[in-house]
Amino acid sequence: MKTEIISIGTEILLGEIADTNSSYLAGQMPPLGITLHWITQVGDERTRLVQALRQAWGRSELTIATGGLGPTEDDLTREAIAQVLGEELRVDPTLVQELRLIFARIGRQMPSHNIKQATLIPSAQAIPNPQGTAPGWWVEREGRIIIAMPGPPREMQYMWEREVAPRLRQRFRGKVIVSRTLKTFGLTEALVDEMVTPLLSSSNPTLGIYAKGDGIHLRLLAQASRPEEAEELLRHSETRLREILGDHIWGTDADTLADVVGRLLAGCGLMLATMESCTGGFLATTLTDTPGSSAYYKGGFVAYSNEVKIALGVPSQLIARYGAISPEVAQAMAQVARERLRADIGVGITGVAGPEELQGQPPGRVHIAIDDGKESKVICGNYPPHGSEVKRRASVAALFRLRQMLLSHSSHLRSC
Amino acid sequence: MKTEIISIGTEILLGEIADTNSSYLAGQMPPLGITLHWITQVGDERTRLVQALRQAWGRSELTIATGGLGPTEDDLTREAIAQVLGEELRVDPTLVQELRLIFARIGRQMPSHNIKQATLIPSAQAIPNPQGTAPGWWVEREGRIIIAMPGPPREMQYMWEREVAPRLRQRFRGKVIVSRTLKTFGLTEALVDEMVTPLLSSSNPTLGIYAKGDGIHLRLLAQASRPEEAEELLRHSETRLREILGDHIWGTDADTLADVVGRLLAGCGLMLATMESCTGGFLATTLTDTPGSSAYYKGGFVAYSNEVKIALGVPSQLIARYGAISPEVAQAMAQVARERLRADIGVGITGVAGPEELQGQPPGRVHIAIDDGKESKVICGNYPPHGSEVKRRASVAALFRLRQMLLSHSSHLRSC
Repeated sequence: MKTEIISIGTEILLGEIADTNSSYLAGQMPPLGITLHWITQVGDERTRLVQALRQAWGRSELTIATGGLGPTEDDLTREAIAQVLGEELRVDPTLVQELRLIFARIGRQMPSHNIKQATLIPSAQAIPNPQGTAPGWWVEREGRIIIAMPGPPREMQYMWEREVAPRLRQRFRGKVIVSRTLKTFGLTEALVDEMVTPLLSSSNPTLGIYAKGDGIHLRLLAQASRPEEAEELLRHSETRLREILGDHIWGTDADTLADVVGRLLAGCGLMLATMESCTGGFLATTLTDTPGSSAYYKGGFVAYSNEVKIALGVPSQLIARYGAISPEVAQAMAQVARERLRADIGVGITGVAGPEELQGQPPGRVHIAIDDGKESKVICGNYPPHGSEVKRRASVAALFRLRQMLLSHSSHLRSC
Repeated sequence: MKTEIISIGTEILLGEIADTNSSYLAGQMPPLGITLHWITQVGDERTRLVQALRQAWGRSELTIATGGLGPTEDDLTREAIAQVLGEELRVDPTLVQELRLIFARIGRQMPSHNIKQATLIPSAQAIPNPQGTAPGWWVEREGRIIIAMPGPPREMQYMWEREVAPRLRQRFRGKVIVSRTLKTFGLTEALVDEMVTPLLSSSNPTLGIYAKGDGIHLRLLAQASRPEEAEELLRHSETRLREILGDHIWGTDADTLADVVGRLLAGCGLMLATMESCTGGFLATTLTDTPGSSAYYKGGFVAYSNEVKIALGVPSQLIARYGAISPEVAQAMAQVARERLRADIGVGITGVAGPEELQGQPPGRVHIAIDDGKESKVICGNYPPHGSEVKRRASVAALFRLRQMLLSHSSHLRSC
């Protein structure tokens, strides 16, 4: 089944937004057994939009389009599909009524521009959109399907999950593709490539290697007619990879380091606290992105200046003697966080986020300390001082180190 | 000049990464006067990659490809370009030497797999890559150009800025497109559309309206043969839009709310402190993403539990009486942050990040307080409790409110 995605929006071609919709949808195809052949982005420009849809109507059995269903004049998806299929747009009374209801509910009059969101063509059915005003279109003719969904990711994803995916799942029961991603830290891409060379020639499952922000990921893809068969193929290769890569593997699939560390902390009944200087709250917000993090994360301090560090309890003599960007101060920050917030483990991070040198320390230099009340470990990293790279990398390194500590010293710790 | 972008990588078609490279590159085209016609994503699969490159070689004068230049077996861009052009790959001795040097510098032996990164075809010149091991390719024949750059965004952007963009700028001096984005908050997309209707029919500059995380953005695009002419066209429409939208406009182009608030604080010589519950450090890390934020941001607390809030100074009676998720506690948090960190303004945020109800409060309910020592304002928001939406939206609302306060109450404040 030839399938393609078309993302519509001039802001994509001007680089003003990243096209997260097509990546989300792409990720939804394998479990449906659908192989995606193309992703194309086009602007809100009628001629080229019609061209792209016409090419898709000609070459693909299933086309999934997002964007261009808004109320404004540059929202042209409905008009373009009508043109490609040679069908006429008409206002649908039921849809108009539903639209008016949505506006009534939020106590507003419907702007006249929104009426175009209530139009259909004969081959199109409306797809309900409980998250916004633009219904989707399910267009079907001559055995071909075009699905048009709104551009705002939340609306699109809701519509996909509740309406579109279930209908597609019923229609297409082909081969199933199952994937497994193993996530490693502490190895380079080429080194991983050499270590796993024997597995790279396999055609089912295939193996791909990707450098990511949190380490090198390895992705296995297995095809079979039933999910259980595909899983069995995966299991075999995964075992081999685990033998080869051992402790470098910290998680699988959708795992984040924050999830993994959170599960370890929760499993041990330990509470964490943080004090951040150069990462400025990035570690805290990363930790609290995991639902339920309050079970193991007490909270933290963001302490940029020496004055604030000292006010919170970091000894001023230590800063005077070693400088604020030092292993000693990182350790004191970890200890203060742990003690002040009555946690079991404290993490302290101090460094130079860049782009300039600070107190004689080069941009990108970071000290990360972990203190569990019995011992205090400190590591030093040098990260590329571009944008928020230092924040991100230092947080990843802190979490990976914390994971190692929780795993290897589990016997020292309270209830593990 | 017909131009297209091809992003290469199976992880894109599987939805495992968002294709940020093509959005970055798309954004680089307008100032060069290059109009982008297509963006296509293809996987690391030889047949389809060759197809995509062949189509591009046939229809576009300039093709910019990213990805597939790594050292592993599924990095196929060099092989595919060679096949499309019918030229032979050969190892280039100078490139081999440079590669060995890179590895020597980090004290490692070059893995044998990396040798493929030192290959060229007769029509290709290597583009230096000081950020990684993969040189780019500048391929030129029969008046057509293919530029191949590595996939990791940092390497690609560095190569683009230092090597590729300057060469393209010299080559193509066509029409210049200049854009101006005005960013608003507090209006819906359809309402903005109605307000600016008269300007929507203009063809130079054109006007686009986009719903974003930090409000509704309006983008003007002007074309002219010289930058000054394009700027003049923009200026005229921008003035009209500012008359229509007034105070709702908080920034332009690359401005973020954190930048705008930071400039206001710095201009007034005021220091800010934060105490966050449900946003978990998101506001702190947003503020510290702006370089130089230490000039106006003292630091903050991340305080999830009542216990931590009380330990930091929030009166326990207040929590007992009103509940932790209340305007009163938000105000106390703002005051404690301001006083404890000796700042001029404190922001306190408490709420339910979701997905579950908490203490009888619905998911998404957030109270945001701003305290400047003379008065304390508090607003209440209800945000969609999906993923990190509550964190993001509450932080945006806090920053926008802070901006309003800084602007309107500037006479109350110390040095403004």
